[in-house]
Order: sequence, then structure tokens, then C-alpha cells
Amino acid sequence: MRFRLTPEGPAFFDMFATSAATLVRGIQAASRIFLPDADRSAVADEVRRIEHEADEITHGILRRLNSTFVTPFDRDDIYRLAGRLDDVMDFVEAGTDLIVLYRLSELPQEIAEQVHVLERAAAITADAMPRLRTRKGLDAYWIEVNRLENEADQLHRRLLAKLFDGHLDALTVLKLKEVSDQFESAADAFENVANTVETIVVKET
Amino acid sequence: MRFRLTPEGPAFFDMFATSAATLVRGIQAASRIFLPDADRSAVADEVRRIEHEADEITHGILRRLNSTFVTPFDRDDIYRLAGRLDDVMDFVEAGTDLIVLYRLSELPQEIAEQVHVLERAAAITADAMPRLRTRKGLDAYWIEVNRLENEADQLHRRLLAKLFDGHLDALTVLKLKEVSDQFESAADAFENVANTVETIVVKET
Amino acid sequence: MRFRLTPEGPAFFDMFATSAATLVRGIQAASRIFLPDADRSAVADEVRRIEHEADEITHGILRRLNSTFVTPFDRDDIYRLAGRLDDVMDFVEAGTDLIVLYRLSELPQEIAEQVHVLERAAAITADAMPRLRTRKGLDAYWIEVNRLENEADQLHRRLLAKLFDGHLDALTVLKLKEVSDQFESAADAFENVANTVETIVVKET
Repeated sequence: MRFRLTPEGPAFFDMFATSAATLVRGIQAASRIFLPDADRSAVADEVRRIEHEADEITHGILRRLNSTFVTPFDRDDIYRLAGRLDDVMDFVEAGTDLIVLYRLSELPQEIAEQVHVLERAAAITADAMPRLRTRKGLDAYWIEVNRLENEADQLHRRLLAKLFDGHLDALTVLKLKEVSDQFESAADAFENVANTVETIVVKET
Repeated sequence: MRFRLTPEGPAFFDMFATSAATLVRGIQAASRIFLPDADRSAVADEVRRIEHEADEITHGILRRLNSTFVTPFDRDDIYRLAGRLDDVMDFVEAGTDLIVLYRLSELPQEIAEQVHVLERAAAITADAMPRLRTRKGLDAYWIEVNRLENEADQLHRRLLAKLFDGHLDALTVLKLKEVSDQFESAADAFENVANTVETIVVKET
Repeated sequence: MRFRLTPEGPAFFDMFATSAATLVRGIQAASRIFLPDADRSAVADEVRRIEHEADEITHGILRRLNSTFVTPFDRDDIYRLAGRLDDVMDFVEAGTDLIVLYRLSELPQEIAEQVHVLERAAAITADAMPRLRTRKGLDAYWIEVNRLENEADQLHRRLLAKLFDGHLDALTVLKLKEVSDQFESAADAFENVANTVETIVVKET
């Protein structure tokens, strides 16, 4: 029930590439919140603006999906891939938003490193999306995303151990944990994107 | 693979209307927990009773779905819509339940306002369900639900900022945050209901 | 679009049985963390090892699903059942992992009891999987899983009430709550497995 080459195919591939490219921009914007002289509210506003852009792109993919009979790969996979890509930006936006909301003066290095890992995951995801056309050469992508997710997980766990060692007051621990949890969820979301891509490719081979 | 008019159609529409009407009753019951003279355990018990009713209705929809060949719209959308409506009541029940479990003497005004927003979301959702039959005049519904979700989100964020400003002990902050998070999740669930309705309508146009 | 007897059928049934049997082993391993003389890091490592095994099994089911045209029951249900079984082990692993990460000296009895309930849920789930072949005699299984989920929920709620009664410092409350939440999520995941099984059976009758 799948057709390789259809007039609708390219549109979907381009939309996924645009969606991933928006993640790259959004996470780069978010990373500026860790700069010593950052205007954090301005950074959070910019990230929110990009998150709204990402919503529009996702919405566009779903509208096209709902009005298209022949799709380049399974409808469910298009639906899932669009949703997973959108999840990433939601978590990143929530993280920067909480940093401002909680007026967190000092941010542990681990949180900045978490976002740095997200930048690399976004870069290779944006790089991989166009290859959905041929479904070739994607193995290296999802292996690397899984490696990055493990790296992010270790940063998150190292931070939790530090937060809970008792040198910080409980409210500060709560705030920092919630921020770090959001970026950890963003790393998991990148892994979900990669797993969806793997599913799509496996069906073809 | 969809047929507009089928003997099974009306049954599904009626069941979704019943499901939404149950949400209206459940959230009205929950809102009584904020009354000065409320018997909070009695309110929580009543909300739990209505939540069980909602489970039964959801179960009935899924059983009928699984035993019906021709459905008024995509099986996945029926499955999703039933589940999303059910999510709302689960979160509302969890919120009132935690208020009792944590013996929260004072409840911030923002939490009562969150539930008030949920009452309005439930009312317009119940009002919209019968219109699934014709799939007409639903735009105003989901635009308003999205507006209400933003309103709920702002109340939730305003409360978090207050809770974490340091005037409350950490345990109280933890308890109130968890209660408020449940009602925020209920507002998100209403938005998911509206998004599912939008998907159904878009497929028809 | 479903065929009862296919060469692919047995493979799926065996894989689900293996998946459930892995849960039994993983949760038995996790339960050893509550022994007075337990080497907790060693227990957590063993649980993590079994969780990786479970990932491999899930991956195998999905790969086979994606490369199989005729399946013993709906593709979505196979996908969902594999994912739900996998969720259980993820939550159990997270719980034991946090016990070590947070260096929790004393563990409340309720948490050990939660894991004991999970052991029973795993045993009856493993016992039920082979009966998916005939779809017979599964009612008792999901009724019991739902009963166990309620039992786990009560343990979790009783613990929360104790944790928040003010005799513990906030950081300890946070740590213990997070551990208990993981095991509560594992119990919910068992209920989701049972609900998926019920859906599969209902479609046949």
C-alpha cells in the first residue's frame, strides 16, 4: 500500500527537513541562555517563538497527511515522526522557560552540557532527514543519536546525584531538577525520532 | 474505508456526548472542593465515583469499536478521542484526591481558577460532541479550547512562580505543585481532545 | 485482515512469552535490593543487564513485525503489546537505579511491598502470554492484574501520605517519592499490558 515515488513524497520529505532545521535553530537559541551576559527572558522569548514555528510546521504536515491519499511511507509513521520531532522543541522550550520562571541565578555546568548534547543531536537529525528519500545511510545516524542519548542521560544522572547530596536547599534542588528533567526528556525525544526513522527504513528493506 | 451514515454511527456519537457530559459533572463536583465549608473527602469520593463512570463509558466505546466493522470515522480516531476524553477525568480525579491525601489546609486561588477554566472547557466540549455528526461549526470550539488551555497554563505558571519564591516550606510547595500539575494536565488533555476532533473534521473536508 | 494460523504466528507468541519471562527475572532481581545485606549496586547492575535484554526482545518483535505481512493479530496490537511489556522493565530499572543513585539508606516497607506486587503481576502475565494463542481463559488474568494495580496504588498512596506528614526532610521525601513513583508506573504498565491483551481477545469474540 506504499508507493516509492509520488508527487506528494517530496513535500513530506521537505517538511520533515524543515522541521528538523527548526530544531537546530531552536536549540542554538536555547544554548545562549547559558552565556554569562545573557538576557535570559529575551532568550526564552526567542525559543518560544521558534517553538510556535515548529508547531505550525507539525500542523502543516498533519493537515497534508490528512488530505493526501498516497504517502511516501506509512501514514502512522509520518504521524509519529512529525509528533516526535515536535516533542523535542516542546521540552527545550519548557526548560528555558523554567530557567526564567524560577529566576535561577546559577546554572550547573551539567545543564549547559545537556543542551550542548541536544545541539549535536539536532545537527545529525537535520542531516539525516533528507536521506529518508532514499532510506540509505541512516544507520550511522541512529547509532550516534542513541550514543548521544546515553551521554545526556549520564549528565542528567550526575547532576541529580550532585543536587541530592544535601549542599543545596530543597527548593533550589526542585527547580534545577525540573529544568534538567526537561532537557533529558528532549534527549529521549531525539531517540524516539531516530527509532521512528529506523522503523521506516526497516519496512523498506 | 469510511461511510458517512451507518446504523453504528449514532451510537458512537451518543457515547461521545455521554462521555463529555460526564466530564462536565465530574469537574463541577471537583470544583466544590474549594468551597469554604466543603467536606473534601466527600467531594473526592464523589469525583472518584464519576471517574469510574467515565471509565465504564470509555470501555463501552472501545468494546463497541472492537465489535463494529463499519465506523462513522477512522477507528484510530475513535480510539484516540475516547482515550483523550478519559484522560481528562483521570487528571481531575488525581488532583482532588491529592488535595485530600496531602491534607492541604489552604489552597491558592490559582488552583481554584484552574478548575474553573476546566469547567468552561468541559462545557464547550460537551456542546461540540453532537456536532461531530455533521462535522460543521467546530472551528469555534477548538479555537476556544486552545485559548482556555493558554489561560490555564498562565495560571499554572503564575502559581509555580509564587510557590517557588521561598515563602513556603519545600514540602508544602511539593504538595501544591503536584495538585496544580494534575489540573494543568487536565487542561492539556482537553486540548488533545480538540486536536483529535480537528483531525476528524479535516479528513472530511 | 487477520489470519488465525500462520507460520509467523508461533514466533510472535513465543517472543511475547520470552518478553514476559524476562520481566519475571528482572523484577525478581530488583526485589533483592531490599535484602538487609544486599550489594545494591550489584543488584542495580543486574537489573540494568536484564533491562537491556528486554530491549533486545522488544526490538526483535518490532523488526519481525515490520518484515511480516501476515500477523496472528492486528499489527497495532502487536506493536502496542510489545511496547507495554517493555515499559514495565524500564520503570523497574529506573526505580532500582535511583535507589543507588540517591544512596537511600533506609527504604520504607511500602516500597518493598510495591515490588512484591510487581512480582505477582509479572508471574500471572508470563502465565497468560501463551494463552494468547487460543485467546481462551484470559479473563481471570486481567481481572487479577487490575486487582494488583489497585493494591499497588494503595501502597503508593499510603507511602505518599507518610512521606508528606512532615517527619522527613524534603530532600529525602523527594528521593523516596521518585523511587516509589517508578514502581507505581510499573504497576500501571502491567495494567496497560492487560488492557491490550483484552483488546486483542475482544476483537476475536
